[in-house]
Amino acid sequence: MTFIEKLSAAWQDRRSQLCIGLDPDPAKFPGQMQGKSDAIFAFCKEVIDATADLVCAFKPQIAYFAALRAEDQLEEICAYLKKRHPQLPIVLDAKRGDIGATAEQYAREAFERYGADAVTVNPYMGFDSVQPYLEWKDRGVIVLCRTSNEGGSDLQFLNSDGKPLYQHVAAMVANKWNTNGQCGLVVGATFPNELAQVREIVGDMPLLIPGIGAQGGDIRATVEAGRTKAGTGMMINSSRAILYAKSEGGESFAQASRRVALETRDAINRY
Amino acid sequence: MTFIEKLSAAWQDRRSQLCIGLDPDPAKFPGQMQGKSDAIFAFCKEVIDATADLVCAFKPQIAYFAALRAEDQLEEICAYLKKRHPQLPIVLDAKRGDIGATAEQYAREAFERYGADAVTVNPYMGFDSVQPYLEWKDRGVIVLCRTSNEGGSDLQFLNSDGKPLYQHVAAMVANKWNTNGQCGLVVGATFPNELAQVREIVGDMPLLIPGIGAQGGDIRATVEAGRTKAGTGMMINSSRAILYAKSEGGESFAQASRRVALETRDAINRY
Repeated sequence: MTFIEKLSAAWQDRRSQLCIGLDPDPAKFPGQMQGKSDAIFAFCKEVIDATADLVCAFKPQIAYFAALRAEDQLEEICAYLKKRHPQLPIVLDAKRGDIGATAEQYAREAFERYGADAVTVNPYMGFDSVQPYLEWKDRGVIVLCRTSNEGGSDLQFLNSDGKPLYQHVAAMVANKWNTNGQCGLVVGATFPNELAQVREIVGDMPLLIPGIGAQGGDIRATVEAGRTKAGTGMMINSSRAILYAKSEGGESFAQASRRVALETRDAINRY
Repeated sequence: MTFIEKLSAAWQDRRSQLCIGLDPDPAKFPGQMQGKSDAIFAFCKEVIDATADLVCAFKPQIAYFAALRAEDQLEEICAYLKKRHPQLPIVLDAKRGDIGATAEQYAREAFERYGADAVTVNPYMGFDSVQPYLEWKDRGVIVLCRTSNEGGSDLQFLNSDGKPLYQHVAAMVANKWNTNGQCGLVVGATFPNELAQVREIVGDMPLLIPGIGAQGGDIRATVEAGRTKAGTGMMINSSRAILYAKSEGGESFAQASRRVALETRDAINRY
């Protein structure tokens, strides 16, 4: 199954457009896990098992593993996901961007080493920096377009030939790069108007939408701006708000994650 | 010593503006190294020892290590460089770009884990995606500006408020981001006219210039366009043309690398 098929099936079967970002920060782990050599894997595994029926994808953020010399635990997490939840796509959040020969190496890292179904990439270096990922026809390539952070406007909102740069990126990906129907875009929930503009440009292309939860984006405005005519098309990402949800009334940390994931999924489905 | 001080001292003391990119591809290693578990470290070590007096910096490209699960060998190479050639800056070529909390993790990866003196970053996500690297005041932050690949023009050459996007990036880095004097820019040798434009905008800021050697950029045009008034300011990078130089008359592979590195350094100094 291709990435797009897996994602569409997950939208359908699970009625969820929630994506959980795996950004493991050991300082925030429950006390009993702290200091153990496989704490990162153990933490992520518990979150995965508690929430897998509620999501359309998991999105590990590679930086959190790289900073801690924990690539081996990222490999274990991906292997676990593929074994236990093979129907759920893994989106590796790497945001790479480099010349072709180097991009080939990064594509191997994402798709071969970690077995990711999709990877995020940066468009700044243009088509030939993205092409090596596209050669993996069954995988997804999710291009940064309008990011959720404040500085996103520094370049993405520059007026380029009469329209903001991010709209050029959306049109370029939709009309030129997406020849095999495997592309998606990253568009932040913090800018619902721009999200609606992108949806207008790209038709039914899947959008990865960070920025709800800890980053403050509004779920209702996001859903209304980002959904396709069929009411799907989104991976609305939440990381910290779910991973480090505050336990209530004797819940375990994983139960708290499940409760917040459920609330978030239902809030998405409400609109 | 800060990155900029190290780099300036290397330009001065070694009379070299050559940077060697470490892009280890085991398929191209000499026969006797193939299949050994530490072949990547051993190959890079021989190149380093054969060329360290000829360069102003080494630039490991992290993708080549990541694709091969060889982060441990990259750690060894960086540790070896710091021990044996502490006066030479290590530029980690990673081209990361992500929101602040994630960029903090990538900065730890580059500066703490690998001990790099400088790292390459991508400007697409704007200032707050670069700021966490700038907090490491003694390190260098080298921002992609005008890249050497063909697709570089897709975005970087878009007309943005009357000038191409890459010139916005150059001005933004020079006038806003570089408050601590620790920034540099990546500008490809394949576009000497644009290199000259960037030099005009950024004054004496160091430029990392890929694209000579295997990518075909002309050394004379590069030097004339890229140097500062003092005749320095450049890290002119060559990777494959030096690493995989063809041996002549019974040379070892490392001797061939040295010969090509020497020719390249001298060609840079000639103009």
